[in-house]
Amino acid sequence: MSTLPEFASRHIGPRDDDVATMLETVGYPSLAALVDAAVPPRIRTGAALDIEPAESEQAVIAELREVASQNTVVTSMIGLGYYGTQTPPVVRRNILENPAWYTAYTPYQPEISQGRLEALLNFQTVVSDLTGLPTAGASLLDEGTAVAEAMTLMRRGTKLGDDAVLLVDEHLLPQSAAVLATRAQSLDIEVVTGDLSDPEALAAGRPVFGAIVQYPGADGEIRDWSALAETVHAGGGLVTAAADLLALTVLRAPAEWGADVAVGTTQRFGVPMAFGGPHAGFMSVRAGLERTMPGRLVGVSRDASGAPAYRLALQTREQHIRREKATSNICTSQVLLAVMASMYAVWHGPDGLRRIAELVHGRARYLRDALVAGGVEVVTTNFFDTLTVRADSAAVVSAALTEGVNLWPLDPEHVLLSTDESITRADLDKVLRAFGVEAPTAPGAEGPAWDPTFSRTSDYLTHPVFNTHRSETQMLRYIKALGDKDFALDRGMIPLGSCTMKLNATTEMESITWPEFASLHPFAPHDQTVGSRQIVSELASWLAEITGYHTVSLQPNAGSQGELAGLLAIRAYHLAQGDEARRICLIPASAHGTNAASAVMAGLKVVVVKTAPGGDIDMDDLRTKIDNHREELAAIMVTYPSTHGVFEETISELCELVHEAGGQVYVDGANLNAIMGLARPGEFGGDVSHLNLHKTFCIPHGGGGPGVGPVAVREHLAPHLPNHPLDSSAGPESGVGAISAAPYGSAGILPISWAYVRLMGGAGLTRSAEVAVLNANYVAKRLGEHYPVLYAGKNGLVAHECILDLRGLTKETGVTVDDVAKRLIDYGFHAPTMSFPVAGTLMVEPTESEDLGELDRFIDAMIAIRREMDDEGAREMLRGAPHTALELAGEWEHSYDRMAAAFPGGAAGKYWPPVKRIDGAFGDRNLVCSCPPPEAFED
Amino acid sequence: MSTLPEFASRHIGPRDDDVATMLETVGYPSLAALVDAAVPPRIRTGAALDIEPAESEQAVIAELREVASQNTVVTSMIGLGYYGTQTPPVVRRNILENPAWYTAYTPYQPEISQGRLEALLNFQTVVSDLTGLPTAGASLLDEGTAVAEAMTLMRRGTKLGDDAVLLVDEHLLPQSAAVLATRAQSLDIEVVTGDLSDPEALAAGRPVFGAIVQYPGADGEIRDWSALAETVHAGGGLVTAAADLLALTVLRAPAEWGADVAVGTTQRFGVPMAFGGPHAGFMSVRAGLERTMPGRLVGVSRDASGAPAYRLALQTREQHIRREKATSNICTSQVLLAVMASMYAVWHGPDGLRRIAELVHGRARYLRDALVAGGVEVVTTNFFDTLTVRADSAAVVSAALTEGVNLWPLDPEHVLLSTDESITRADLDKVLRAFGVEAPTAPGAEGPAWDPTFSRTSDYLTHPVFNTHRSETQMLRYIKALGDKDFALDRGMIPLGSCTMKLNATTEMESITWPEFASLHPFAPHDQTVGSRQIVSELASWLAEITGYHTVSLQPNAGSQGELAGLLAIRAYHLAQGDEARRICLIPASAHGTNAASAVMAGLKVVVVKTAPGGDIDMDDLRTKIDNHREELAAIMVTYPSTHGVFEETISELCELVHEAGGQVYVDGANLNAIMGLARPGEFGGDVSHLNLHKTFCIPHGGGGPGVGPVAVREHLAPHLPNHPLDSSAGPESGVGAISAAPYGSAGILPISWAYVRLMGGAGLTRSAEVAVLNANYVAKRLGEHYPVLYAGKNGLVAHECILDLRGLTKETGVTVDDVAKRLIDYGFHAPTMSFPVAGTLMVEPTESEDLGELDRFIDAMIAIRREMDDEGAREMLRGAPHTALELAGEWEHSYDRMAAAFPGGAAGKYWPPVKRIDGAFGDRNLVCSCPPPEAFED
Repeated sequence: MSTLPEFASRHIGPRDDDVATMLETVGYPSLAALVDAAVPPRIRTGAALDIEPAESEQAVIAELREVASQNTVVTSMIGLGYYGTQTPPVVRRNILENPAWYTAYTPYQPEISQGRLEALLNFQTVVSDLTGLPTAGASLLDEGTAVAEAMTLMRRGTKLGDDAVLLVDEHLLPQSAAVLATRAQSLDIEVVTGDLSDPEALAAGRPVFGAIVQYPGADGEIRDWSALAETVHAGGGLVTAAADLLALTVLRAPAEWGADVAVGTTQRFGVPMAFGGPHAGFMSVRAGLERTMPGRLVGVSRDASGAPAYRLALQTREQHIRREKATSNICTSQVLLAVMASMYAVWHGPDGLRRIAELVHGRARYLRDALVAGGVEVVTTNFFDTLTVRADSAAVVSAALTEGVNLWPLDPEHVLLSTDESITRADLDKVLRAFGVEAPTAPGAEGPAWDPTFSRTSDYLTHPVFNTHRSETQMLRYIKALGDKDFALDRGMIPLGSCTMKLNATTEMESITWPEFASLHPFAPHDQTVGSRQIVSELASWLAEITGYHTVSLQPNAGSQGELAGLLAIRAYHLAQGDEARRICLIPASAHGTNAASAVMAGLKVVVVKTAPGGDIDMDDLRTKIDNHREELAAIMVTYPSTHGVFEETISELCELVHEAGGQVYVDGANLNAIMGLARPGEFGGDVSHLNLHKTFCIPHGGGGPGVGPVAVREHLAPHLPNHPLDSSAGPESGVGAISAAPYGSAGILPISWAYVRLMGGAGLTRSAEVAVLNANYVAKRLGEHYPVLYAGKNGLVAHECILDLRGLTKETGVTVDDVAKRLIDYGFHAPTMSFPVAGTLMVEPTESEDLGELDRFIDAMIAIRREMDDEGAREMLRGAPHTALELAGEWEHSYDRMAAAFPGGAAGKYWPPVKRIDGAFGDRNLVCSCPPPEAFED
Repeated sequence: MSTLPEFASRHIGPRDDDVATMLETVGYPSLAALVDAAVPPRIRTGAALDIEPAESEQAVIAELREVASQNTVVTSMIGLGYYGTQTPPVVRRNILENPAWYTAYTPYQPEISQGRLEALLNFQTVVSDLTGLPTAGASLLDEGTAVAEAMTLMRRGTKLGDDAVLLVDEHLLPQSAAVLATRAQSLDIEVVTGDLSDPEALAAGRPVFGAIVQYPGADGEIRDWSALAETVHAGGGLVTAAADLLALTVLRAPAEWGADVAVGTTQRFGVPMAFGGPHAGFMSVRAGLERTMPGRLVGVSRDASGAPAYRLALQTREQHIRREKATSNICTSQVLLAVMASMYAVWHGPDGLRRIAELVHGRARYLRDALVAGGVEVVTTNFFDTLTVRADSAAVVSAALTEGVNLWPLDPEHVLLSTDESITRADLDKVLRAFGVEAPTAPGAEGPAWDPTFSRTSDYLTHPVFNTHRSETQMLRYIKALGDKDFALDRGMIPLGSCTMKLNATTEMESITWPEFASLHPFAPHDQTVGSRQIVSELASWLAEITGYHTVSLQPNAGSQGELAGLLAIRAYHLAQGDEARRICLIPASAHGTNAASAVMAGLKVVVVKTAPGGDIDMDDLRTKIDNHREELAAIMVTYPSTHGVFEETISELCELVHEAGGQVYVDGANLNAIMGLARPGEFGGDVSHLNLHKTFCIPHGGGGPGVGPVAVREHLAPHLPNHPLDSSAGPESGVGAISAAPYGSAGILPISWAYVRLMGGAGLTRSAEVAVLNANYVAKRLGEHYPVLYAGKNGLVAHECILDLRGLTKETGVTVDDVAKRLIDYGFHAPTMSFPVAGTLMVEPTESEDLGELDRFIDAMIAIRREMDDEGAREMLRGAPHTALELAGEWEHSYDRMAAAFPGGAAGKYWPPVKRIDGAFGDRNLVCSCPPPEAFED
């Protein structure tokens, strides 16, 4: 270890002498010997990673400051879905910069996630209240993908034939239209874009399953869409409003003029533009559509004591359950950003939000009036914050830039500009100067400049949570109280098998809130974004080196989007070869559900390949399936090492078989953490992989997002990577179109992964994978004496995770994986992944960041629980878990002892869940997805 | 409120409608009417505060960025007690930038402060281990004042006569020598500075009570002081080593060559230079001297269940108990910085610290060897990190600056330079170029360049806490686990009467960690520190405006130092007038103990003025005392509003009486928060005040420091303010000398107060005082129905705090203030100030930042406790408080109910103390002040 860079020794948990101890337990003389025994020689890479040597934390921060200084932050009035905003400092410091929030996992264990679940319920309430639609989800990836999801939701939600078309507002944001086009094409949906004021003319007699409007339009105009809604509804179709949430505080809610669905972004609710993301997209729907919504939904249920408690609702819609029948392939959402946006609403409340909206509108009105007075033609008549202005756009945009303001050249004769809460009077006057207009001397008109029929009259955010926390002290305490309810990596290990929960180092996190990275508009001129583009290109080249691929696109802003992009590239490649028929995608039974859902979204047909008794892919079945579909074979999707946590020996043969049949090999990179520096998918047979920067490359999980899912391809697929209509350098001209709203997806958090690679260097990354394998094998070895370890590879070794098979024990004792998971809370742990990929099992991935002490603490807890399973009296305790402090103080009706129940792991650092075990089914039967009245929580 | 700046409405707790509700309770129609009724008209100021209008948070941050950009950060090799260092990012983010740590109060309530007490015990262990002296304190203000405290400690610790002198090493750091001189002068101690290799010659026959050496010397030379120690000891004196803590990891510990006392700074243990401070000074002493140590001392005791627990030890030495007989006037120490330094040691451990020391030494050795090889004379022979080099210093310093490195021009013919852990090889070669020397091509020699007899052979930091937390994940969890034990402002109100615990806003805190403020050496050239100097001068002028004084010095880095500076100014003024005899300082009986202790340190004699039955100063006694001491009267020290929380009507008359007698009026500004914008001490009769920026001006308490204590004076005292030998612009040439080690004291945190004033503007500050008065009167009014409120002013109104008199209730029920304070923990509150200024009472200062909801929650808790006092059964519960979660799970031996004991305030947001009530006396009898072995904590 001593030869490793200092940071690597801080990132990796076990010390040198711990590694020696653990190797002894596992039975190998050295890490190298262990890895040689575990990883199939055929796939081992020959060369060390060719990456710049690691630098110290101090040096990397200095480098990042230098890179950041290559960006130029000017006042952005580009708008188009991205606005200047003021993150409340108390929210930035205590959420975005606080490990208690950013290192949390998706709230699958709701008893230890009540804080962020409450914040998400607030988010849903904000969206639901402002759009007027009763059920809102817990966030989507961005506005563009939310629009695309609305399209498929509307198609699912209507009973019209395959010839039904989608009508799209010509004033939809251009990036949304691009994402929509990409998705529609792969699903063979016909999109008709035009002037929606006469929908029947546009539909030209075809049935219309849905219409999507931008509200207000991308040109700034507020339009009355009630007639459209009536017409579309009359034909059995649905209407989606892509709406600006801030505008909705002063404009009629979409539900009030007939929208069935609302989508959009919550970026301007205090989330920095960050060169395009991450931000939380939103969707809300009218009653009756909630069960067809994509993505996560938080609901209120009750715990074992009958107290209200939050948890994810209607999970049976989701891809990890429904696989190819899921409503969407969305897996990660944008929890951390949704939490920030919800806190912005909590901080400002309805009055504050309305005041901000009025200010923003007043600034636009000031500009409009001054421009008109100055003889400039303003095309927009009813507007909220955006004006289309007739002018020589090149000249005006250039003049504004000289003043330090970015405007948007809509076309040669029109300039688009938007105001926001961060714009000052001085900025406005700069804009006027750019148009050659004098600033007015008289005070401007006040009040709304739109037709009064557009004004909102209904209330919103009347719940106390939006009307209480007005002082910074109150807000700080609210954030702290919520964070204290949750278990995140700052408390202890999160030994998931389905996600790699490793250290999110402070140095990696530090730069993302620097204004140079955080304040860039994604469509800002290239010469203002040189630093961020450098991060993108360097990170992409490192990822290509690590994976052995030719080209990497960083646009996909979640693993699911990376999958979709990869599969679209495969499909486009086949089409380019004239192989129209290749639509079959083979997917092993053990695959993550997202694989299947993504394949369907890419227009492919899923054929499942069986699992052999040992857990590996059934090669005979594979051969049969290939033979059966030889001419239609598009691809196989495999995860390597497998979702069973095994280095399958057959991977090379598998790749050959598929290639021979003309198929492409998609290697899901979810488990890349096990092979970094040891094997490269692009070398051992993969044609395409997506990676999860939030797994292997240290982007924190944020309680369930943001994620970043780059797609990496071999050279022949590179022409089919995503691109972007507003940024020609974001992908090949021949690409499949936009996958995310922003050219570089969640560009704002790429410095995290950039810093990780820079701090580790090739040797550090390789060591990281080796220790990840060691840690998993140590756990498997020690726990294997107490629980059956379901699958292993050559030499009885696992890869980076192991599956503990509880099925026999459950049969024997009645104790379920759920009981064990909840009992682990009493011991102070987050549960491993439950029942994936095999029902009735627990999957444990320790990662390289956990130290021996913490591994042993976990193993000892699992062994103690195993003993409790054997003890008839203690079994009741497992079923009663988790135990709260409150119940200790009340009547004790259990047969077992309070102390044994509550302090099985000792008193030091005891974590208390705020609720008892939550009844999920009750909540699904009685769906409540916005803030319940405070009386519900009275003791 | 709506006319207030946005930030003020976030800083101030009550909303407009809350203010109306509260005014109704208090019985006044408006805030103005309340203030008119409460504050004596004679002292009200006529004019509104003349301060720039408030700006928004966004604008203030932008201004601060602009100011920061006026500073230039270059590589510092100045040394002289301030070194570049690398704050572990995990420590910076999770301690220095974490409200859980920085908003905590001094751990007077140890049950809810176990986290920071453990961190401080770690600090003490670091100091004790490295110096080799068994007892170390929990930090002092800086190295300069620590040296001065060592002087008085040695005088107290020896039995020599008044003619005994202090011998001081000519190589003492110049700023330490300056602070020492200031202190010695007022105490009439003779300091003899020179070459200590022949102490007898230097003493010239006089007895020597102490000797102070710098180890290694300011010139860089490591000297063997064992012979000196023998000689001084033989004469009955003591020896203090002012030592470099990092050097002690590789050099013989001071105790090992005979030092009795060690002092120094822990700055280079990860605490930024910050233009001079704040940093934690340290002191450790040999056995037998611990009870004469100044400042705070953390010790191990036990709680009511017998478990080990930390708390402040030997508090009876301190100024708040001992008053004029205290060992020192130190009140606040530097807890936050001591915690950071201790975490640096936890993070690196003994091996890591030694490696850093070796690196630092290696860099100095590289320079020495290359310089010598290049024909340059290096004067220093045995060195750790500092070299004195013979050269044309002006030319070399200027050449180095061109390269981007600051060196120190010791005198025209010598340059001083120091290496540190942040220096790079490139920096070293820049230095060589500045000397006109080629960088060597061969690798340099390794190992220590000093005489081997100087090498350390003894172990240190062998305790597990320094050998466990090596990965960032482990460190994060350790910090989190400690922070979780503590109650700070992020959990709930801290209603102290002795400190103003108001909001420490994020925007105020934000800039202090920017490199432009954090990375400046205090002696860097003026043109590199323009921004920080602007902060100093603007803040000083605003404070002068607010207080009505002529000139403000920001050098005192604690309230106690401000007091001392103010009293020294008074003394110097009298001397300048030829009034040699004026040495009497009148101090009311109710004064804070620091007043008396400071007066003694200023060479004054304390005469106590009685309190009248109503709590005001007894004016008859005052007249008598003035008459008795008319010719010797130096000053009176009064706090306004008084420590009884009352606007005394007699203040004007008091000032007149004292002035008539030729005395000066010292108005302690501790309670300035009650009168900002309403009255100005400099207008209503004060000649001098010190302020507490950590009370009124939002510098967070940090768990017991840092504080800043500016001193403000009328024009006639301005020539007698502090100055600094190394910065002529830091004070008047005629000044009293240095009060703190750095020219501007804790300059690094002045941006906090600067931002507060800038964000509030004059109107916001005034409103702040008004609401502080309202909040206090609301509490007094509502609680007055349940507890006697001890003192009130005109119209029955209190000022900004109120005293609840429990003496009668205690007599009646046996329930003590201690019981109430501990019971408040069960309810989720920090206790009010206990038994100050009147034994048997609780003093409550809510501050303007607490909202009505939190005030009511506190009041309701106090009322509920009052009912418990009346209930015989519940009294036992008060005596059993606080209750831990652990005891709920064990055998329950109390007569009362678990639920009533543990959840009196409901379950929501329940805070659990980690220990039961702590037995302080046991710990004082069995003094343990470094980390106990882990076995002590086994269940």
